[in-house]
Amino acid sequence: MTVSNRPSGRAHDELRAIGIERNYTRHAEGSVLVSFGDTRVLCTASVEPRVPGFLRGKGEGWVTAEYGMLPRATNTRNDREAARGKQGGRTLEIQRLVGRSLRACVDRRALGERTITLDCDVLQADGGTRCAAITGAYVALCDAVGWLKARGDITRDPVIGAVAAVSVGIWQGTPVLDLDYREDSGCDTDMNVVMNDGGGFIEVQGTAEGHAFRRDELDALLALAEQGVSELVALQRAALAS
Amino acid sequence: MTVSNRPSGRAHDELRAIGIERNYTRHAEGSVLVSFGDTRVLCTASVEPRVPGFLRGKGEGWVTAEYGMLPRATNTRNDREAARGKQGGRTLEIQRLVGRSLRACVDRRALGERTITLDCDVLQADGGTRCAAITGAYVALCDAVGWLKARGDITRDPVIGAVAAVSVGIWQGTPVLDLDYREDSGCDTDMNVVMNDGGGFIEVQGTAEGHAFRRDELDALLALAEQGVSELVALQRAALAS
Amino acid sequence: MTVSNRPSGRAHDELRAIGIERNYTRHAEGSVLVSFGDTRVLCTASVEPRVPGFLRGKGEGWVTAEYGMLPRATNTRNDREAARGKQGGRTLEIQRLVGRSLRACVDRRALGERTITLDCDVLQADGGTRCAAITGAYVALCDAVGWLKARGDITRDPVIGAVAAVSVGIWQGTPVLDLDYREDSGCDTDMNVVMNDGGGFIEVQGTAEGHAFRRDELDALLALAEQGVSELVALQRAALAS
Amino acid sequence: MTVSNRPSGRAHDELRAIGIERNYTRHAEGSVLVSFGDTRVLCTASVEPRVPGFLRGKGEGWVTAEYGMLPRATNTRNDREAARGKQGGRTLEIQRLVGRSLRACVDRRALGERTITLDCDVLQADGGTRCAAITGAYVALCDAVGWLKARGDITRDPVIGAVAAVSVGIWQGTPVLDLDYREDSGCDTDMNVVMNDGGGFIEVQGTAEGHAFRRDELDALLALAEQGVSELVALQRAALAS
Amino acid sequence: MTVSNRPSGRAHDELRAIGIERNYTRHAEGSVLVSFGDTRVLCTASVEPRVPGFLRGKGEGWVTAEYGMLPRATNTRNDREAARGKQGGRTLEIQRLVGRSLRACVDRRALGERTITLDCDVLQADGGTRCAAITGAYVALCDAVGWLKARGDITRDPVIGAVAAVSVGIWQGTPVLDLDYREDSGCDTDMNVVMNDGGGFIEVQGTAEGHAFRRDELDALLALAEQGVSELVALQRAALAS
Amino acid sequence: MTVSNRPSGRAHDELRAIGIERNYTRHAEGSVLVSFGDTRVLCTASVEPRVPGFLRGKGEGWVTAEYGMLPRATNTRNDREAARGKQGGRTLEIQRLVGRSLRACVDRRALGERTITLDCDVLQADGGTRCAAITGAYVALCDAVGWLKARGDITRDPVIGAVAAVSVGIWQGTPVLDLDYREDSGCDTDMNVVMNDGGGFIEVQGTAEGHAFRRDELDALLALAEQGVSELVALQRAALAS
Repeated sequence: MTVSNRPSGRAHDELRAIGIERNYTRHAEGSVLVSFGDTRVLCTASVEPRVPGFLRGKGEGWVTAEYGMLPRATNTRNDREAARGKQGGRTLEIQRLVGRSLRACVDRRALGERTITLDCDVLQADGGTRCAAITGAYVALCDAVGWLKARGDITRDPVIGAVAAVSVGIWQGTPVLDLDYREDSGCDTDMNVVMNDGGGFIEVQGTAEGHAFRRDELDALLALAEQGVSELVALQRAALAS
Repeated sequence: MTVSNRPSGRAHDELRAIGIERNYTRHAEGSVLVSFGDTRVLCTASVEPRVPGFLRGKGEGWVTAEYGMLPRATNTRNDREAARGKQGGRTLEIQRLVGRSLRACVDRRALGERTITLDCDVLQADGGTRCAAITGAYVALCDAVGWLKARGDITRDPVIGAVAAVSVGIWQGTPVLDLDYREDSGCDTDMNVVMNDGGGFIEVQGTAEGHAFRRDELDALLALAEQGVSELVALQRAALAS
Repeated sequence: MTVSNRPSGRAHDELRAIGIERNYTRHAEGSVLVSFGDTRVLCTASVEPRVPGFLRGKGEGWVTAEYGMLPRATNTRNDREAARGKQGGRTLEIQRLVGRSLRACVDRRALGERTITLDCDVLQADGGTRCAAITGAYVALCDAVGWLKARGDITRDPVIGAVAAVSVGIWQGTPVLDLDYREDSGCDTDMNVVMNDGGGFIEVQGTAEGHAFRRDELDALLALAEQGVSELVALQRAALAS
Repeated sequence: MTVSNRPSGRAHDELRAIGIERNYTRHAEGSVLVSFGDTRVLCTASVEPRVPGFLRGKGEGWVTAEYGMLPRATNTRNDREAARGKQGGRTLEIQRLVGRSLRACVDRRALGERTITLDCDVLQADGGTRCAAITGAYVALCDAVGWLKARGDITRDPVIGAVAAVSVGIWQGTPVLDLDYREDSGCDTDMNVVMNDGGGFIEVQGTAEGHAFRRDELDALLALAEQGVSELVALQRAALAS
Repeated sequence: MTVSNRPSGRAHDELRAIGIERNYTRHAEGSVLVSFGDTRVLCTASVEPRVPGFLRGKGEGWVTAEYGMLPRATNTRNDREAARGKQGGRTLEIQRLVGRSLRACVDRRALGERTITLDCDVLQADGGTRCAAITGAYVALCDAVGWLKARGDITRDPVIGAVAAVSVGIWQGTPVLDLDYREDSGCDTDMNVVMNDGGGFIEVQGTAEGHAFRRDELDALLALAEQGVSELVALQRAALAS
Repeated sequence: MTVSNRPSGRAHDELRAIGIERNYTRHAEGSVLVSFGDTRVLCTASVEPRVPGFLRGKGEGWVTAEYGMLPRATNTRNDREAARGKQGGRTLEIQRLVGRSLRACVDRRALGERTITLDCDVLQADGGTRCAAITGAYVALCDAVGWLKARGDITRDPVIGAVAAVSVGIWQGTPVLDLDYREDSGCDTDMNVVMNDGGGFIEVQGTAEGHAFRRDELDALLALAEQGVSELVALQRAALAS
């Protein structure tokens, strides 16, 4: 283990305390409160017996996501997007990422002509909200699918693998895992990595905040992410088994 | 006590289990999770050192509210208002009501040129969300004012009385207190009553859903509300003392 | 009669001069210019042979309302809502109230699969515009129903009672009826009361502007409103008979 | 006089009955109800002691216009633009035309750093609303300027000539003046002409609805418009003198 | 030829260098880059096998236009309309004009139930963009119709004449043809004239920028426009023949 | 060189024909038409002597980007974003990426309190528009900076390295460089890589379209991108030298 002086005091390859609380609210077919340290995201999965226009009559389902942040989830209050009358670019970018990531683990033909919408609402933010959202939405999705199976609506399991995500970055020259807000703000490079439980990459989004990153730094970050996601997948599995 | 066959099994004058959990999230100056049975609303109070244009330079503060409902707070998923690009009429109506109600207990001159915004976000809905929002927002407001006092920013207490709210309605001929969703849907008449701790009325909003209500029914509903609010004020006081 | 020093010089229980002019414009199925003193609202009723999606195929009709104020209906010019790109909270609140109030006097099954839209546009404002709108819209609605009956489109009368509305408030300690703008601005408490011709309450919306109101004040206001509405219902009846 | 079989029964060069009623509403600095037959437009002029950003500090005033149509001003109900959330292309086109036309008769330096907004709201439409709006707005503008003079706010008269407008078209081969809705719908060519009291053209907007129009037709239409505007200017003058 | 000291150095009746480049982009059924001097507009024609709701099932086609200007087509950068969230009044006015003008040369019954959309996007602006757009869109429309004929989708030619447009104005007392930006800004009067190849007028839109224009000035402008359009029609014909 | 059967017939590591045409339009401080094969993007750089609010008074400049696609840049017509009233998620995502990428090569202190806006408008699309936009915008940025230097507005060069971007993907098992639309649609994995001229990574955005990608595939893609970007940087240099 590399010695690290990261602000959180964690080892460079140490996740925050991860919580995955199922059935957090009662109406949704899947409802999970996921926490990555102080980051807390409520992920609900809603099943609806219809698909968007471009899929109608094709015998396939759809999985999509929406993302929001309560105005005071952060240190200073942000305008409410509903009041401003539009979702910002960051919001749209994240919800598109969450949707694509979850679709990567679903056999949409096995789902049938249904839509599962994953609403990811950040109750409290401390960095890594999109990774927490993906990780929690996967569990909510499994619960919604379980609900469909319990009703006998579907026979074949449409979930074809697990999906989880983690952020990695370079803090004062050292690659570190699962950045909190303070670390994220101070990092030169920041990468969000979405992977499946087979070690395959679904999304890799790296951004140089300060100076550009070298290929060897990129390699080190990917390795850290591989380790982090495999731990998250184990935690998802445990939560679903309980 | 009148015998009642209300769906919830409660006595006609019985509140649901009320919860008031302070410091629910960590960033806001006041953060309260209020629950009226299965209705759960996160109320945060944010202090900002400025006032809207129409108050600038007048030496007075401002208290305002915004209201939102997570898309799957309800039994079937609602469109996200941020995605639709506007807040609906019901949302605007409720947040205007919450704002007016809280301003009724604040000496805005003692607050100084500051704005306190009360964000009331419904995590789970089961009837009475606006009443829960007002009741919880009051406690969040008190915490935000306590924060200002602790910093020495204000000397005189701007909170000049407590505010709480409850719904009442007529269920199959019987006036009942604190309607849950099933009762609300089945009621002929529905009234939301906002009062202060001195027994004064701040807002009375009654609507005949089925047939119009008689004056004696209105009187019975007001009496029930008076009792309910006085219990809520006691619970607020206990929460703030703990 | 209580002595009153209200700005308008009226007795505490005295309505303003009320005018109800039918057939004010020629295209609408019902068109009424209602005036409560200097408040003038043009109420038109438009019949359309279709219903909103949620009612399609149910054999029921719909009654809805929209409200607007010309930019210079008031003392200082307000932004045009069409130019700003959205209706404000106050507008939405009022048009929801007008719609609910008018639906309360309609048997929607007798109306058949038709929508009647009540457009209430304020040409000149001097307080009480929402009450004038409800009172005038009722007459426009009757004229539109008369038009349907004259064509033989409906056989059973869908209007099952009259609806009218009036504002009441407490001016310097005295409950007064039908507030004009100056009185409204100076009142501690302001209440809008919608009732039917059987003395039943349809909507009661009271707001404490200054200090909270006591139960006995509320009782006095309701009594005044009962008297005012019964006078308005008589004037509606006279207008419809002419 | 050419014989004409126009639907209205009017002679080919005959205006409809024109009404110009000043002080129609009481709050605006100028308020005129103008009628061209069954077309009725309420034109108010509002004075505000400020100018748009691009004129600030230049010692000049601004004159602008907004146009709206009540939803049921027409034979079938139109959506309310405020509810749809935007003004349509036709509305924007007309209000830009009205604004340009009125600015053509104002010495903006003599007006000083003030804005006069002309709100033209159509209460009832029967063709020619934009021409009626311009003709009525001119009178409302004069009244607003009179108000400024009476207060001693300005010394030099900023109104440097009269402006009026009329529509002309070709009905079954015959050029006709001041089209009502039925005539307008049946015309091959439709032209709106804005002129001043010196016989100068301010705007000419001709559109071939069916086949293109020849130069000699255009000439005949312009001659009719010249006559019609001179009659309208006389009526404006009479209204302002009364 | 009248001597003219116009800024461009051109004779008073001289068009700018006109370019009509077909097949400028490869996806559209018609794609034309038209240039009037330094004004360059990309006009594409898109064929779609459907019509707007109000035409469905009537056996007629539709022709419509949209107009846009790249933010830096002009000397100083304009806000992007997509980012501001709405098209301005000038844009709507122009695209309505382009659509009406092109519909004037189309037999919509011969087109069948298809829509042809003409997108006119200004890459570089130097005055006269709407006239260039109409002139170029006509050629793009012909190419799209040629594409339909080549596929055998239509048998009868729906294009029933040519359409072109030019601006004229009065520069320091002299009527001049085809204004560039500098001339347009300095003109007292500005007129856009749309005509067909038979010498018929389709649209005439004249605006007095400074003082009103006399009838003889109007006549001189129309004569100049007639000459300019006939030259443009010849250039269109040549481009289509090549 | 790996044998490749890619649709374009190019070698697996072969860029399309790249064009960089400076001074494409005349008003902007920098104006570049960049082409990657049939993809053509007009990139203009506009200099404005002000910065957004959050930077005011800090002595730093700002670089930002906007992205748009003409409605018929693609094979089937897309709705115009200005007409729909909002920019889509894809647009916002791309323009945020372009802005971040260009800021990575600018010393904002050396730029002074100025904003450079890079408008990237796609005239014709055939895959890789965001990479072409970044590559072209860099050249436009250099031209705008050259304009500032020529005027003597800045002394120190704020451009601290070159930036270019390319897409890579896995086509039927083979990693290939610079995907056109057909290849992009058929790829399992698609990655956009933004790098500087020192071989540093600025952005890496990889997405598994079909199945997840393995670490060795990711490595091969990054190597291809490194090669492609170094060729693009050489082409940028040549264009700037000409």
